[in-house]
Amino acid sequence: MGNIAIAIHGGAGTLMTGAVSPEREKAYHEKLSEALLAGYNVLKQGGSSVDAVEASVRVMEDSPLFNAGKGSVFNADGKNEMDAAIMNGKNLKAGAVAEVQTIRNPVSAAKAIMEKSKYLLLASHGAEKFAKECGLEIVDPSYFYDEERHQQWLATKDKDINSWAGDSIPLPSGASEKKLGTVGAVALDSHGNLAAATSTGGINNKKFGRIGDCPIIGAGTYANNKTCAVSCTGEGEFFIRNVVAYDISVLMEYKNLPLAVASTEALKKVAQLGGEGGLISIDSQGTISTPFNTASMFRGWIDTTGEKYTGIFR
Amino acid sequence: MGNIAIAIHGGAGTLMTGAVSPEREKAYHEKLSEALLAGYNVLKQGGSSVDAVEASVRVMEDSPLFNAGKGSVFNADGKNEMDAAIMNGKNLKAGAVAEVQTIRNPVSAAKAIMEKSKYLLLASHGAEKFAKECGLEIVDPSYFYDEERHQQWLATKDKDINSWAGDSIPLPSGASEKKLGTVGAVALDSHGNLAAATSTGGINNKKFGRIGDCPIIGAGTYANNKTCAVSCTGEGEFFIRNVVAYDISVLMEYKNLPLAVASTEALKKVAQLGGEGGLISIDSQGTISTPFNTASMFRGWIDTTGEKYTGIFR
Repeated sequence: MGNIAIAIHGGAGTLMTGAVSPEREKAYHEKLSEALLAGYNVLKQGGSSVDAVEASVRVMEDSPLFNAGKGSVFNADGKNEMDAAIMNGKNLKAGAVAEVQTIRNPVSAAKAIMEKSKYLLLASHGAEKFAKECGLEIVDPSYFYDEERHQQWLATKDKDINSWAGDSIPLPSGASEKKLGTVGAVALDSHGNLAAATSTGGINNKKFGRIGDCPIIGAGTYANNKTCAVSCTGEGEFFIRNVVAYDISVLMEYKNLPLAVASTEALKKVAQLGGEGGLISIDSQGTISTPFNTASMFRGWIDTTGEKYTGIFR
Repeated sequence: MGNIAIAIHGGAGTLMTGAVSPEREKAYHEKLSEALLAGYNVLKQGGSSVDAVEASVRVMEDSPLFNAGKGSVFNADGKNEMDAAIMNGKNLKAGAVAEVQTIRNPVSAAKAIMEKSKYLLLASHGAEKFAKECGLEIVDPSYFYDEERHQQWLATKDKDINSWAGDSIPLPSGASEKKLGTVGAVALDSHGNLAAATSTGGINNKKFGRIGDCPIIGAGTYANNKTCAVSCTGEGEFFIRNVVAYDISVLMEYKNLPLAVASTEALKKVAQLGGEGGLISIDSQGTISTPFNTASMFRGWIDTTGEKYTGIFR
């Protein structure tokens, strides 16, 4: 049995220390731990990295704490519209969904597409139809209604501001957060296979059917056994323009940079264009890197020694 | 004034010599010439590569000969559903639309997003709404109805086959074509700026809201003044998994490969996964490369010496 390791993120943002109550902070750490263990247990039992990242992401999708699945933000029409992607580093197969509103776990729909379809990226009602045919859990859109997210949206909806426009989104606690992220996981399984998955509710008050980097293979999500697995969070448009996830892979493959250097380098290019965010990455040795250029990034990992870490701030 | 050059494609496929009538072949060459000249005239007058690739792609979108705009194939629901993207190599800005049904020239909607929106990729009705607000020409979906494309679809719709499944699509001429492409253009302007644009009607009889590589920056479309501009055509899923357009750019940037070697290398990886297609690329010197691993690719260019070429077969 080879090394196993897993890393997750629950979004990069501008939460400052003290901006959340101790109870809420504790809840974040607990949910990150639960998500980590869900994936790690798959790996420990000899399961695949694909199944592990799906398991971790599903836990975060089912929690209202993160901007994905149940906790998705509202778009300009007052709806929850989600994107997700998954990639298998063993065979470079991938699957993704965009703008789905009725699939409880978008990451599982992405996985079903990867495994059962000749297509890779399915959108909107078509993606929902495929997910239903695959037997995935379909829910009423009201399932994704979360009072706190709805309040965030109501406070911004008439102002043409959204969570990545540099505007503050009020939190019920009285604090505010500028950025609302994404969730993601990357893992190395005992067979030496890497996988990555990302899932998001997009950006608060987004208009015009906007799709971000999350479902874009190479931008927000990428995995290749030769190099690494990557899941990004942040201002999606900048991550797409920089093809960030694949950039990390080729900085390793073509320039022989180690994972951490490649990850930092790719994120630096995002900052150079004026973009903010972060990412998690893992290489074939189980080395983990989690750089971010925001004030905070919900994150956690269990490394090859079995040590667990969860963190929010710098 | 620096060098100017432009290359276009009208899709890679399996048309064999003799499979099309001489009249139809002549029509293809004439339309490719017209598209080339539309872009080249912009460049000659000192215009931008962005405007040039838009102009070339619009000519092909307005023709029923190619699978984009007016000549788009039908999806499984009997509708014409288009994707397009454009990227400016000068500032790495990009715009894209997916699944639009009422925008006469999807490439112009992609350009409007690039220039006027904080978003990059817009889909479906949201994208159409944005295009309308920008004053672009909105048409009734019936505008995209083409009798020949409809016949192709009718012949395949109940058979769960589509144009990239390896199945033959009958042509009214009695011949058949297995693959129906995409259109695209890449250009170098006199200011040394590169740009790329791609537009497509997707694959005949596509289901479930499938989106291909065309609107995915890094996969089907990419431009960067440091390296090259690329537009791809072929089995989109394979181009997404290989992040083909960006791969060519980084094979140049990170491995110092010349354009033609980088382009061939990236396309070879597509073939290694079992994928077919082709691409056009241009570097900052105006060098043009147009590799394809199919029997045919509608293509043409006007190089830095002003020489014009159009071709269909190998």
